[in-house]
Amino acid sequence: MALPLWRRAALLYRPGSGCRGLRESGKERGDKDIEPRVFSGIQPTGIPHLGNYIGALQSWVQLQEQYNTVLYSIADLHSITVPQDPGTLRASILDMAACLLACGINPSKSCIFQQSQVTEHAELAWILSCLTSMPRLRHLPQWKVKSQTQRNEGSVGLFTYPVLQAADILLYRSTHVPVGDDQVQHLELTQDTARLFNRIYGDFFPIPRAIMSTSKKIRSLRDPSSKMSKSDPQKLATVRLTDTPEEIVVKFKKAVTDFTSEVTYDPEGRPGVSNLVAIDSALTGRGTEEIVQQSRGMDTSQYKLTVAQVVIHKLSPIREEMQRLQREQSYLREVLYQGAQRAQEMAAPVYDSVARMVGFR
Amino acid sequence: MALPLWRRAALLYRPGSGCRGLRESGKERGDKDIEPRVFSGIQPTGIPHLGNYIGALQSWVQLQEQYNTVLYSIADLHSITVPQDPGTLRASILDMAACLLACGINPSKSCIFQQSQVTEHAELAWILSCLTSMPRLRHLPQWKVKSQTQRNEGSVGLFTYPVLQAADILLYRSTHVPVGDDQVQHLELTQDTARLFNRIYGDFFPIPRAIMSTSKKIRSLRDPSSKMSKSDPQKLATVRLTDTPEEIVVKFKKAVTDFTSEVTYDPEGRPGVSNLVAIDSALTGRGTEEIVQQSRGMDTSQYKLTVAQVVIHKLSPIREEMQRLQREQSYLREVLYQGAQRAQEMAAPVYDSVARMVGFR
Repeated sequence: MALPLWRRAALLYRPGSGCRGLRESGKERGDKDIEPRVFSGIQPTGIPHLGNYIGALQSWVQLQEQYNTVLYSIADLHSITVPQDPGTLRASILDMAACLLACGINPSKSCIFQQSQVTEHAELAWILSCLTSMPRLRHLPQWKVKSQTQRNEGSVGLFTYPVLQAADILLYRSTHVPVGDDQVQHLELTQDTARLFNRIYGDFFPIPRAIMSTSKKIRSLRDPSSKMSKSDPQKLATVRLTDTPEEIVVKFKKAVTDFTSEVTYDPEGRPGVSNLVAIDSALTGRGTEEIVQQSRGMDTSQYKLTVAQVVIHKLSPIREEMQRLQREQSYLREVLYQGAQRAQEMAAPVYDSVARMVGFR
Repeated sequence: MALPLWRRAALLYRPGSGCRGLRESGKERGDKDIEPRVFSGIQPTGIPHLGNYIGALQSWVQLQEQYNTVLYSIADLHSITVPQDPGTLRASILDMAACLLACGINPSKSCIFQQSQVTEHAELAWILSCLTSMPRLRHLPQWKVKSQTQRNEGSVGLFTYPVLQAADILLYRSTHVPVGDDQVQHLELTQDTARLFNRIYGDFFPIPRAIMSTSKKIRSLRDPSSKMSKSDPQKLATVRLTDTPEEIVVKFKKAVTDFTSEVTYDPEGRPGVSNLVAIDSALTGRGTEEIVQQSRGMDTSQYKLTVAQVVIHKLSPIREEMQRLQREQSYLREVLYQGAQRAQEMAAPVYDSVARMVGFR
């Protein structure tokens, strides 16, 4: 069911590629006079790590400067597709709000909200589930991978997860969706669902385009062949946004590299040190070549400490602001409440139109 | 995954079995001090037929006299699990409201409402879908049958339909559910889901019990080996509640029976005439033996006319009232609006508790 590559490419828009605004594919209808809206979501399951920051959160902050309407959902409905402890989940929702604000998401520019507080997400998901065929979902690679790690193949919610994601995006008639590589196929499902709805019920949804992060994928500090991950059992593999400077120094000191002492950028041949250069580049904005040149004469163990300092410099204010905000629970709740109000103001007329088109109203 | 029979039997309560109120199974928790609530639903897809009336609607009318809290949902969310024309669906929702009122559902005793007007149905369905395993749904016999008639196996909504049904029932902490034989396994899924929720999050949902109709299953007038059905391609097979007296006479005159002229009740050996006796019995309240005795000396063609008159006598006032109500669209909308208000008043605190227990609030 995968789209041919040319079509996928036409739907991607890379920020900073010199194309300010939209790159129209010229083939899609329904998005002519639609105000650009950016939507993305993050699950409230644990503290985000450096890979999440570089791959997503950093660009979320940039997007709120580039677009008038930007929505970021704390996706609690998605989080329960695998078992969650209720007390932990409750705390994690506020922690994630604190984290987003601390990273620089400005609630007066972006609408930050908790997904379950906007009833229309689940309602639209139901309608879209009646437009989605079983084989279309079953062939999504994430389902195949995730279901294998769960008892009894995992829950029905884990299976229908991408339909809820489509509802999240379409509920705001979103035009742009910052996604990671692993979400491209879910966005394609969203695009197909929007097209199918438009074909059956009349032109209504814009076809949302991906905004791909231009940053390099950040890898485990202990095993540069795999992605940095929240759930990595090796404690030193993952840098969390709440790590102290001491923890960050230890993790970078122990970062796995090879036996060449020089700093070069060669992700295939030297993934360990290249990962460090990628982190450095993403956080300082310097190009990888520039970094390599400026690090001439440094050995990798010295360079590890340099990168640790770059990370500490970026993360310390975030960690401190997050800790301050975590003590302001009522402020966080107010931000989420106001966000949900604004999100619902946008969602309600969209869902109302959908319900009318389907024949419920 | 089917429950052993003893357990199924313990969960059934047959009205008129001499047990007024609840038959406690003695094994279930969570339903001690819970006010009895009856819930059922019907899809707004076409005019109900005589089998629906005898098997469900007639007992719905009785239940509103027996229980203080009775909810009947016009299940529009369920109806779109297979393709529907929006204009037809919109009209059918009001037609179904007219039909329920015409059959004797009293909106001051029963809460009649349109499912999609109460947002919590879809919201709770999402949460319950995260508690339901894929094999549990896949093994339900209705899915196997229905998916074979649909393109691409049918929609995801058709697959997850029983989870929405569980949400419908549990959203009101319902204690009693009038169901047909074909819905018993869906109610078992609801019971299992309630138990699982209670085990994970704490005792909350009563385990709803089935109220089985004591009426005989009404069969096609053209082929007594199959059930009377809305979608039967043979026009004379199905008596609709809106059929005129003339149409009813024709359908009963042409009803398939055997070559024995006597009226007897023998569903195995003589299914055609026995179906007529069953219809007669359900509408007049006379026992089948009594009917057979009183019909002595009559041949089946005479008896067909007798049954046609019984049906006309029962359905004519319903048809006329339904036609009157169909002209009162704003009254019907007001009934549904008031019903949704009352349903939501019951649903909101239940969903709020669930959301808190899960960790969303």
